[in-house]
Amino acid sequence: MEMMQYLDETEESVDKAINRYFGCAFGELYKAGAHLLTAGGKRLRPAVLLLSAEAVRKGSAADLMQAALALELTHTFTLIHDDIMDGDTARRGVPTVHTIWGEPTAILAGDVLYAKAFEFLCTAYADDRAKVYAVKMLAKACADVCEGQNMDISFEKRTDITELDYLEMVQKKTGALYAAAAAIGGILAGGNQVQITALYQFGLNSGVAFQVQDDLIDLVASAEQSGKDRASDIREGKQTLIAVKAREKGLDLSPYRRDMTDTEIDSLIALLDDAGIIDEVRAFAVERAETAKLALSVLSDSEEKQILLDIADFFISRGF
Amino acid sequence: MEMMQYLDETEESVDKAINRYFGCAFGELYKAGAHLLTAGGKRLRPAVLLLSAEAVRKGSAADLMQAALALELTHTFTLIHDDIMDGDTARRGVPTVHTIWGEPTAILAGDVLYAKAFEFLCTAYADDRAKVYAVKMLAKACADVCEGQNMDISFEKRTDITELDYLEMVQKKTGALYAAAAAIGGILAGGNQVQITALYQFGLNSGVAFQVQDDLIDLVASAEQSGKDRASDIREGKQTLIAVKAREKGLDLSPYRRDMTDTEIDSLIALLDDAGIIDEVRAFAVERAETAKLALSVLSDSEEKQILLDIADFFISRGF
Repeated sequence: MEMMQYLDETEESVDKAINRYFGCAFGELYKAGAHLLTAGGKRLRPAVLLLSAEAVRKGSAADLMQAALALELTHTFTLIHDDIMDGDTARRGVPTVHTIWGEPTAILAGDVLYAKAFEFLCTAYADDRAKVYAVKMLAKACADVCEGQNMDISFEKRTDITELDYLEMVQKKTGALYAAAAAIGGILAGGNQVQITALYQFGLNSGVAFQVQDDLIDLVASAEQSGKDRASDIREGKQTLIAVKAREKGLDLSPYRRDMTDTEIDSLIALLDDAGIIDEVRAFAVERAETAKLALSVLSDSEEKQILLDIADFFISRGF
Repeated sequence: MEMMQYLDETEESVDKAINRYFGCAFGELYKAGAHLLTAGGKRLRPAVLLLSAEAVRKGSAADLMQAALALELTHTFTLIHDDIMDGDTARRGVPTVHTIWGEPTAILAGDVLYAKAFEFLCTAYADDRAKVYAVKMLAKACADVCEGQNMDISFEKRTDITELDYLEMVQKKTGALYAAAAAIGGILAGGNQVQITALYQFGLNSGVAFQVQDDLIDLVASAEQSGKDRASDIREGKQTLIAVKAREKGLDLSPYRRDMTDTEIDSLIALLDDAGIIDEVRAFAVERAETAKLALSVLSDSEEKQILLDIADFFISRGF
């Protein structure tokens, strides 16, 4: 099967399952929780979990859909809380949860999805030993995501962030949940420790690649492609790898921390391009994707392993 | 052993364990998470978990300390998030987390303790089947607590709350976590389903009794005894059982939604007392405590069962 077909089919079955459980949410709290969850999304973390299980087990992982949902629930809970912290008003083309229901209910809506994630993980068809391991793995990932988000927030006030700081932040904020998705797939499918560690490394590194590509898309893609305002990271003074590398090269981006016209953004891109920064950031993402793919060499070949390899490439080639 | 001695000794060993894990927190996020956790507290939920395990197993449950901590971590996470929602500035004699570190870090500090709760629960010495059951139970309790807190917030805008609404809210907001504490103790100690259900009902009903007594303390106790301003619930228009019963009897408390002198509070108490409200609320708490104790009749007699029975009585007799 082609990667795109797999991702489309998984998106459809995840959407169906989410609709079954959260489509007719009862009460304001569950409506608030279901709001972003049912507003779409590429469902990449569930896909990585299912593919990892299938690559280990060499057979369908449809019975692990509850665990795949647990990852999407976790991801959505972090989005709801992040939107409060960042004061964002729109996501996935809809108003953010706190914009509609207010902050108290939004905090609680995130907390409820957090609980549901652990509940769903425990109802997957797998043996209890694997489930306990999976719960520990998810809990660790949640703590990592919180640490990463807190680093990200604290970075905005600092001007001494190194590439190493950036890497640690993005490994935690984005990499950890992809790592958990892949590893939990391996765990629940009965994989051995070598396979589980390999899948964890695959998820961690492709997650970092995904985030670096996201930073590039924010700068380079048009507003229509990305669904966000162009160059919002630079305008908000975010410490992305682009900003870190610019500072290392003596390029001061702080004058761009303001509204810019399209022409101004274009000349800023040209400036960063001339300094070699965009190429270096791309190379960084490519290196991470290669590391991710290399980790999978311990798995025997299969259609699903190939799709995982393709996903790592997709993460750094996608334009939106 | 006497109940008070047991509670004191458990408080001490829980404090010690918390200090071991969170006493030298590294980084702002973990410092924020440890702040309320290390600021004291009666550690009643851990005590209920350990006693329940000991009553089932008829032996020490010291090996379940990690699980007992999971309950305290969960309780503390809900306090941190509640304080943000309620805009409270002090708790346990120290400033609230968001007052010191700001809302974003406080949200994340709660989220980190939430993750740690599940991690700790999974590291208790118990068999995997029991741990999976315990994780489901804790996740369900967390969802209940969120629902209860959301009901509590929404009640403040309403004037049609019935006793049944109040009971549902308080069962979720306070009862659910005591229920989970008792049931998880039974689960991890290898109890059968009859014992686990009995312990759940014990925790649920004694938790409700605890909360009703808390509402009475808020009204009747002096500021020195309760550590809070007197009659803060009535002054803030909270829908406690006292407020619900007052409305049922045609007593309008809304004029008291303001600062009051001690003399004014004393005459308000006299008014509520004359209408029989304080006696009725006390009777309600007593009934819940009796229901809690009755549930334990399926457990064979032991010192620990007796302490659990004493705790139910303590919950409705304590003055602070």
